[in-house]
Amino acid sequence: MTFKLYWAANTCALASHILLEHVGAPYEAVRVDLAAGEQRSPEYLEVNPKGRVPALVTERGVLTETPAILQYVCQRFPAAGMAPLDDPWALAQFNSFNSYLCSTVHVAHAHRMRGSRWADDPAALEAMKRKVPQSVGEGFALVERDLRAGSWVLGANYSACDIYLFTLSSWMESDGVDPRRFPRILDHRERMAADPVVAKVVALERAKPA
Amino acid sequence: MTFKLYWAANTCALASHILLEHVGAPYEAVRVDLAAGEQRSPEYLEVNPKGRVPALVTERGVLTETPAILQYVCQRFPAAGMAPLDDPWALAQFNSFNSYLCSTVHVAHAHRMRGSRWADDPAALEAMKRKVPQSVGEGFALVERDLRAGSWVLGANYSACDIYLFTLSSWMESDGVDPRRFPRILDHRERMAADPVVAKVVALERAKPA
Repeated sequence: MTFKLYWAANTCALASHILLEHVGAPYEAVRVDLAAGEQRSPEYLEVNPKGRVPALVTERGVLTETPAILQYVCQRFPAAGMAPLDDPWALAQFNSFNSYLCSTVHVAHAHRMRGSRWADDPAALEAMKRKVPQSVGEGFALVERDLRAGSWVLGANYSACDIYLFTLSSWMESDGVDPRRFPRILDHRERMAADPVVAKVVALERAKPA
Repeated sequence: MTFKLYWAANTCALASHILLEHVGAPYEAVRVDLAAGEQRSPEYLEVNPKGRVPALVTERGVLTETPAILQYVCQRFPAAGMAPLDDPWALAQFNSFNSYLCSTVHVAHAHRMRGSRWADDPAALEAMKRKVPQSVGEGFALVERDLRAGSWVLGANYSACDIYLFTLSSWMESDGVDPRRFPRILDHRERMAADPVVAKVVALERAKPA
């Protein structure tokens, strides 16, 4: 069985994409063109009624929501050691971190470009954009506080949390957050970017569609 | 070891509270008075630097984020059967559902009372409030579509997903969403409210603080 990952450029689908590549999963990556509105096409809504990416097609059905995809891929490829599967407490910290990125940091970021999810008034959308540097910055401040210098999110072991953090921390500059405020996250991001698997997937997503 | 759950009235902490009670965990429930600003007291920020509820204190440390707490409690009390722990695919659906409630439905809801997380302008806060019935309604429409009549979120088996759905669906009326639009969620909510464990915790949270 080959997985199918629906992804789009500059989205959190990058995290699932890097993880699939890292664990050596057999998968096909299918680009969804958000600018062209493909996520709202009848064909795509058949795959994912939410009209979002990522969506992971497996032999048992379609899975959405990044935190769920990350744990699932880690469970399917346990030899890769990308989640602390044998320790419920450590796994809870893994999920807590990913849930925070998803429901707080990513949500804060989304108020810059996707404010129309939560308000219609153009002035309100502008007001939301203005607060993004602060709200995203506060999210990363909490991550920075808990990150230990030179190590990974969960401590000594590299995990899917690092891939997810890398994905979201890549958006800092465009969100108006100066990464120099967060030296440990910045160092983490540089170490991640230097990883050959990460670099490969980033390059692939940045390449012009054929 | 007795867990300690920090909760506040009318918050998503209700889900963790009901689950702890349901699985028979030894726990102490500690009320945080949000109206009095206790969540920002130095004492509470020591427990949870996010200044939010829920926070679960365990023998290994503090755990935050509802989706992470739910899976963790299910793993600590496997005999209660509140998560499909032995089937990675079913567990992924469990987490996908909880993540959707957390990062989409709860976030939409939060724009009614907590809009200042994402904008400062009073007119923008009003614009956010106006869209809550629509955005929360869209979130529940997707849940309604997948819920099978008379059954539980994951199908035949009652799980922590049902407790989380009950918690958020209890907010519908105050969010300006008519629950009659969602007959399966409404039926689910009524079955949940009739459960003695659910009723006990709801009554406890509604009681006046001593």
